[in-house]
Amino acid sequence: MTVYERGKLNRVRVGTRAAYDQEAIFKILDAGLVAHVGFSDHDRPVVIPMIYGRIGEQVYLHGAKAARFAKVLGPGVPICMTVTLLDGIVAGRSAFHSSMNYRSAVLHGRAALVTDVGERKAALEAITNHLMPGRWAEARPMTEKELNATAVLAFTIEEASAKTRSGPPNDDGEDYQLPIWGGVVPITTVFGAPEDDGVLAPGADLPESILKIIST
Amino acid sequence: MTVYERGKLNRVRVGTRAAYDQEAIFKILDAGLVAHVGFSDHDRPVVIPMIYGRIGEQVYLHGAKAARFAKVLGPGVPICMTVTLLDGIVAGRSAFHSSMNYRSAVLHGRAALVTDVGERKAALEAITNHLMPGRWAEARPMTEKELNATAVLAFTIEEASAKTRSGPPNDDGEDYQLPIWGGVVPITTVFGAPEDDGVLAPGADLPESILKIIST
Repeated sequence: MTVYERGKLNRVRVGTRAAYDQEAIFKILDAGLVAHVGFSDHDRPVVIPMIYGRIGEQVYLHGAKAARFAKVLGPGVPICMTVTLLDGIVAGRSAFHSSMNYRSAVLHGRAALVTDVGERKAALEAITNHLMPGRWAEARPMTEKELNATAVLAFTIEEASAKTRSGPPNDDGEDYQLPIWGGVVPITTVFGAPEDDGVLAPGADLPESILKIIST
Repeated sequence: MTVYERGKLNRVRVGTRAAYDQEAIFKILDAGLVAHVGFSDHDRPVVIPMIYGRIGEQVYLHGAKAARFAKVLGPGVPICMTVTLLDGIVAGRSAFHSSMNYRSAVLHGRAALVTDVGERKAALEAITNHLMPGRWAEARPMTEKELNATAVLAFTIEEASAKTRSGPPNDDGEDYQLPIWGGVVPITTVFGAPEDDGVLAPGADLPESILKIIST
């Protein structure tokens, strides 16, 4: 099992709820839908929500070739990619001990535009299937024109860490005597009933990919 | 109504679903729970999930004084703060036209540690109440020691934009003839039944703040 070394970027300073092993980090990545990707533009930090996919240790991002990220992110440009899953609001008896329950993975790495057509297709398949398991095979195949209009970015992880908070508030000893409620409000992401767009062709039944999503 | 000028940082390049007015941007901010905050550390971009609060045009962040952000973010250091709300998975008949429905606000600005005690308290109240409406008044008052251990950051917005996608997929004309399902799987964030920590003192009833959260 790969464990990332604690470097100057990924070392979690506060709290003891850190993990540095790939298994913990990829578990959060695989459970998330959207990453917040940070990079530098005009010497300023920029954070953009993006979907992503993973093949083994390789993470992929994509976007229109006209998008900023495709223009700014030349080979070797450093980026940071963070995936956060919210699990609950933690109501402590004091504001100081109020918090959130969450799982987050922070990945530090470098970007490279993928030029190889085979790798580009595999990456787009991984991104599509990450959002909707098996959708790539169900969908109309990607055309050459679409492939050419899409920038695919390979993200190579250099340092990474995961951070988790779970469970009830950690209130101060004496505060437990106060008549103040303490506990957690759980947060879940719920997929609703699929809404077709009203112009389905004959035979366009609800596919496996969507059935899989709503059964989770 | 304040409308942010389209600058080199906030101009949305792709798609026409952009807004630059404060009302649209603050609406997304107020509906979100967690922001992804980007800044530079050792010349590398870092993206960290953080809770936040807002008082008028002023956005506040906070954290332990020992946390990286409190050490790295000196006066005038540029930061970017992004709040994303996921509304649905958009299943196009092609992978190319598959997407997500979302609302996101991207704020570019500069950080300053708040030193004034009154402003620090007001900021922490805003952050606490953003997560749990009215919780600040219910909770045990913050002590001097807790206040001193907490770094409060004022975020001054310089440029900002909002981006939204909603509705069904925009498939290619001829693809509507294919026997492939097209539509949206709605995503909602659901607050579950509050779980107290099992050590409530007498009289520690479920408070207004929590009742408000679970009624949304």
